[in-house]
Amino acid sequence: MTPTLAPPERNYASINLAHKLSLLHEHWSQRVVAEMNDYQFKIAKLQGDFVWHSHADTDECFLVVAGELRIDLRDGAVTLRAGEMFVVPKGVEHKPFARSETHVLLVEPRGVVNTGGEQSDRTRPNDVWI
Amino acid sequence: MTPTLAPPERNYASINLAHKLSLLHEHWSQRVVAEMNDYQFKIAKLQGDFVWHSHADTDECFLVVAGELRIDLRDGAVTLRAGEMFVVPKGVEHKPFARSETHVLLVEPRGVVNTGGEQSDRTRPNDVWI
Repeated sequence: MTPTLAPPERNYASINLAHKLSLLHEHWSQRVVAEMNDYQFKIAKLQGDFVWHSHADTDECFLVVAGELRIDLRDGAVTLRAGEMFVVPKGVEHKPFARSETHVLLVEPRGVVNTGGEQSDRTRPNDVWI
Repeated sequence: MTPTLAPPERNYASINLAHKLSLLHEHWSQRVVAEMNDYQFKIAKLQGDFVWHSHADTDECFLVVAGELRIDLRDGAVTLRAGEMFVVPKGVEHKPFARSETHVLLVEPRGVVNTGGEQSDRTRPNDVWI
């Protein structure tokens, strides 16, 4: 038997959020960039006012990559700038708002619909990769 | 009965990753900054070489906030810069390495130990908040 060579070193690919966001040209649509167990990391570009909605079965994490996002809640609000995050608790009504285009990373279980329990013209497919 | 006033609008607090990282002064220790369902978001400052380890029950997500992280795998490596992420699959041996101090956000289920199945002098408590 001839000796086998060591396999070539594999260069695994990092996921660059700014690059992924540069490929997305639609507001309020989510694109999956990674999965971890049964959770997904999704990017989105937000501008203007979204619809009030809630997710009955899960918390939802928002991490702002660029811009400024205000998340209105029924009894207040939180404002997130780049490098800031917030977890909306399960069942809590919320409405994202961005005065100018804002880039976010969402983390939530696979299968969560962007408008939660509210069917709306803003509802989008939830398992599209980029 | 006298009418009640509307409750004051509550200002919810955002989680600022750079601020949280500024409060952490130890390398390789993780601190929880948020929870989403049974998952945790944890910050850490990494410098130098960690130990080879794996997590038998879960994937593990690394997102670099500042600096540069190389994650060695047995058959290759991935290098992450600020704004880049990578998910190490369940059961896959890996060894983080940072030439100079690097700040990361980890996402993984509550209860994951930093050194996985390898007890080491690098093993740290895994449920400390900051």
